[in-house]
Amino acid sequence: MLAIDPVLNERIARLGTLDTGLCNGDFLLTWEQSDTTIRFVLEAADVLERFVRAGVSTRVFDTGLGVSIFRDKSTRTRYAFRAACNLLGLATEELEESSSQISHGETVRETAAMIAFLTEVVGIRDDMFLGEGHEFMTEVAASVDESHRAGVLARRPAVVNLQCDLDHPTQSLADLRHLANVFGGLDALRGKRLAMTWAYSPSYGKPLSVPQGVVALMTRMGMHVTLAHPPGYELVDAPLDAAHRFATASGGSFRTTDSMTDAFTDADVVYPKSWAPLAVMRERTVLRRSGNRAGLAALEEHALATNARFKDWECTDELMGRTRYGRALYMHCLPADVSGVSCASGEVSRSVFERARLDTYREASYKPFIIAAILLVTRMRNAADALAELAADPRPRHPD
Amino acid sequence: MLAIDPVLNERIARLGTLDTGLCNGDFLLTWEQSDTTIRFVLEAADVLERFVRAGVSTRVFDTGLGVSIFRDKSTRTRYAFRAACNLLGLATEELEESSSQISHGETVRETAAMIAFLTEVVGIRDDMFLGEGHEFMTEVAASVDESHRAGVLARRPAVVNLQCDLDHPTQSLADLRHLANVFGGLDALRGKRLAMTWAYSPSYGKPLSVPQGVVALMTRMGMHVTLAHPPGYELVDAPLDAAHRFATASGGSFRTTDSMTDAFTDADVVYPKSWAPLAVMRERTVLRRSGNRAGLAALEEHALATNARFKDWECTDELMGRTRYGRALYMHCLPADVSGVSCASGEVSRSVFERARLDTYREASYKPFIIAAILLVTRMRNAADALAELAADPRPRHPD
Amino acid sequence: MLAIDPVLNERIARLGTLDTGLCNGDFLLTWEQSDTTIRFVLEAADVLERFVRAGVSTRVFDTGLGVSIFRDKSTRTRYAFRAACNLLGLATEELEESSSQISHGETVRETAAMIAFLTEVVGIRDDMFLGEGHEFMTEVAASVDESHRAGVLARRPAVVNLQCDLDHPTQSLADLRHLANVFGGLDALRGKRLAMTWAYSPSYGKPLSVPQGVVALMTRMGMHVTLAHPPGYELVDAPLDAAHRFATASGGSFRTTDSMTDAFTDADVVYPKSWAPLAVMRERTVLRRSGNRAGLAALEEHALATNARFKDWECTDELMGRTRYGRALYMHCLPADVSGVSCASGEVSRSVFERARLDTYREASYKPFIIAAILLVTRMRNAADALAELAADPRPRHPD
Repeated sequence: MLAIDPVLNERIARLGTLDTGLCNGDFLLTWEQSDTTIRFVLEAADVLERFVRAGVSTRVFDTGLGVSIFRDKSTRTRYAFRAACNLLGLATEELEESSSQISHGETVRETAAMIAFLTEVVGIRDDMFLGEGHEFMTEVAASVDESHRAGVLARRPAVVNLQCDLDHPTQSLADLRHLANVFGGLDALRGKRLAMTWAYSPSYGKPLSVPQGVVALMTRMGMHVTLAHPPGYELVDAPLDAAHRFATASGGSFRTTDSMTDAFTDADVVYPKSWAPLAVMRERTVLRRSGNRAGLAALEEHALATNARFKDWECTDELMGRTRYGRALYMHCLPADVSGVSCASGEVSRSVFERARLDTYREASYKPFIIAAILLVTRMRNAADALAELAADPRPRHPD
Repeated sequence: MLAIDPVLNERIARLGTLDTGLCNGDFLLTWEQSDTTIRFVLEAADVLERFVRAGVSTRVFDTGLGVSIFRDKSTRTRYAFRAACNLLGLATEELEESSSQISHGETVRETAAMIAFLTEVVGIRDDMFLGEGHEFMTEVAASVDESHRAGVLARRPAVVNLQCDLDHPTQSLADLRHLANVFGGLDALRGKRLAMTWAYSPSYGKPLSVPQGVVALMTRMGMHVTLAHPPGYELVDAPLDAAHRFATASGGSFRTTDSMTDAFTDADVVYPKSWAPLAVMRERTVLRRSGNRAGLAALEEHALATNARFKDWECTDELMGRTRYGRALYMHCLPADVSGVSCASGEVSRSVFERARLDTYREASYKPFIIAAILLVTRMRNAADALAELAADPRPRHPD
Repeated sequence: MLAIDPVLNERIARLGTLDTGLCNGDFLLTWEQSDTTIRFVLEAADVLERFVRAGVSTRVFDTGLGVSIFRDKSTRTRYAFRAACNLLGLATEELEESSSQISHGETVRETAAMIAFLTEVVGIRDDMFLGEGHEFMTEVAASVDESHRAGVLARRPAVVNLQCDLDHPTQSLADLRHLANVFGGLDALRGKRLAMTWAYSPSYGKPLSVPQGVVALMTRMGMHVTLAHPPGYELVDAPLDAAHRFATASGGSFRTTDSMTDAFTDADVVYPKSWAPLAVMRERTVLRRSGNRAGLAALEEHALATNARFKDWECTDELMGRTRYGRALYMHCLPADVSGVSCASGEVSRSVFERARLDTYREASYKPFIIAAILLVTRMRNAADALAELAADPRPRHPD
């Protein structure tokens, strides 16, 4: 009854040729992952989605837990993580820090071990403070390593970055999968122009990890990436250095400008999005560590005043008209601040967003599959074999 | 080892004769559902309970998610939704709105799509404000429709009403299944007298959806339904119109009275329950939309004063004595406000409630099966075939 | 591909010789359980862990729910309960009391029935107030009994104590399993000396259930148990009486001292841990019931002052030097208050804790298996048969 498309089998076979060596490892920053791993994740996400669209189960775990720790609000990524775990057969469990003691030093190490005993993956969002999120994730990873080496843990769970201060890999990989689908494959991205630009939002404090993740990943694909932002809205060094390095290696390019118009001109893809000023984010971390509440309030006031000076950084029809054939692909990680809809004045005009809206939903729809693919690459030695077995004897995912 | 009762197979076969056409649809208001669908849900709930009592698994989903959105407190319905999903093999996930942005306009549409990617059902409780709950559910339904038509969603999840401002279908259908069991089948309800009456509670603001759901559903069964309430406690038009229409079609009747005694006289079934005054609920919605907190407080004070005038609307032994043979079936959706137990003066006297208590637990026990049956009718084209397969090769639900 | 160790089969066979008679019962206090049941739980936990380390699934439930009620903060036990349920195939659901009405009298009875319809186990933590936790659990147990006898519930869920005011059986049994592993089996514990001693912590109000559970359980094993605490920090009678009774029966001993040094001298095992003063805990319950907030604040101030007089009750290198060969096993239920790490001055010095740290993680690692073993003993008539079937036809728990 359940028919498996020959293309699916072919893709599974191709996946089998990619040796990532990441089994029992973590997935924290795309720029620390090999090209093979990046390719594996994209292809595996495609394979998993094909299974779902064929109505075939991809349950490879009989039991097991995916634990999530969200140190910031989340709808999309929280759902995507849980959907990804469920797709493979894992139950999920969220560590509520308000009802636990996980925080600093000793206790991070301890609590990480305590939630790892029968756990396959620990997914973490910690994106609020520069210099903290990635560090927290590496602490968790070091702890499960230690307990695994000591034989306390039967298996070492993977630590997966669901957004930190440096990178948002599940977002940027979903974005990349969207790009590949729109343009006709990863190879078709070579030479295409992408404008990753800052845009105005009334809430000035958004994480830097989305633009950082995008420039560091898309430059690997041979794209010509332009980063645009007002002065003061620079990004941290590591992903920018990676972007330069990858651009050189891939035959793409990477440059920075302080003009949104410049970035949009002849772009094939535009990604206009608000983020916080770097210096402010750094000072915020310092003030927070010293418990300086008055300082934090003053900083916020100052930041909002600065931010308000750049209200003209809005993705309008006029700007879109300057892109390639006036028809660049508009991207956003959602939710977007749409002028006249979710705020008076925001990142994008109503008319631009409304045309692109369903496309941004499609972009978001890849995230559960990307996360599931990351689970495959970090948990399985022979993912392709297991997937081939699923295709050979297909079990329905849902009733008919 | 697992024995399947021949009656179960017979019931499954009967289910196969009911063509509801609701696959991939929603379940929002009983009065918009066909008689066939109503019958299917009741019969399927019976079949599922028989499976459970035989210790046989009804897991039809291998993986998949049921997402719930609760905009009001809930113990019973929340549990029932999760138990129903688990019974069929779905994992559940609750959207916590405090940690997301789902609210009005644009964002409802967007968030609905974001939580639908690998979701089979979205169960929603939104019963706090007249004119809002049902509207919210239709917005969610329209959004998943749009994303499904655009190909973003591989499947369109069902939207299921777990209580809105108009109806509480999972409650009224559980109530109906209880009635059918007590009286010996749906046909035996024809001609029976049911008193759906207001009763006093110190908390005046309970939703109108339970009485609305009950009068609109029981009139379909040929019952003689009397609605009783003090002046000011009217219900909204749509379910009342439906009740009149259904009563005419079924050979039952529907009338309203302002006397609890009148309603109880010769009743076979009584359902005494507090609800809020209609005009107050309407004004509350207006005040809330305009953010008028002082107005809301004044309204509440006024409503409590009015409410206190009707303390004598209590289901007592004396009133029960006026029902058919003094032995009417007492029904309640729970928790009841029991005089001298959970409050000084409430909906029902301690002695009446204590006699009926286990019966009300039984009434509540049908809800998980009703919700699971609604999942079958909205998700499966051939539920009877799938259930027959489960019966033909029974798998234990739990160890022995 | 999956190899089953012959030892595992042998252990399963041994399990089959233990007739506990606890199927459909509860697990509330270890001192009310038979020796056979205690032995079964320990052996079954060992068997389950062997399955996990062999990568073999122990999913015995096809569907079903484990409901938890946490009336106190919890990381470890909450995780352990969910992991245990998942290990056997149950989905979990937490009753959030803030969004429900479960509290006193009538409503406990009712809500217990409402969350039991398709539930296999109700796990409860209620350890905050002396005289309340165990009582609450017995109320829940009585309610599901009543509903089961009345036929409302198809199955009667087990009530499992995840820590009450009297006992913390999942902790003490995990502790016992750790002891057996360290010393080479339960029989090797005979004659060993265990010091269960109070230790200073800046937070004075920790439950008494851990020391109570430890002394009541370890005395059964023929151990020489010494309980040490400052005056005022006595424990409640029931577990102390049990400890005396068990010590006599097992050939061990049980004594109390007010000197930490005395207890440590020649001990094979030390368990230094803070707990609250008994009289204060009793008064707290009275004040709370009468809603006396000022009284509670005064009580807390007084208790902290008293507590501060015993800062020298700290597990130091010097004290450890007095134990058997200076090398007693250090135990703790975690999180420990480590001097200079999580507080200025606490239960244990940094150097003692750091040496023992991974050992305490190992101690904690047994808890999910103990809880799962309690599920087996309370839910299954023939656990050994079911486990033997799993071993005969092993299914992978996770992909390779």
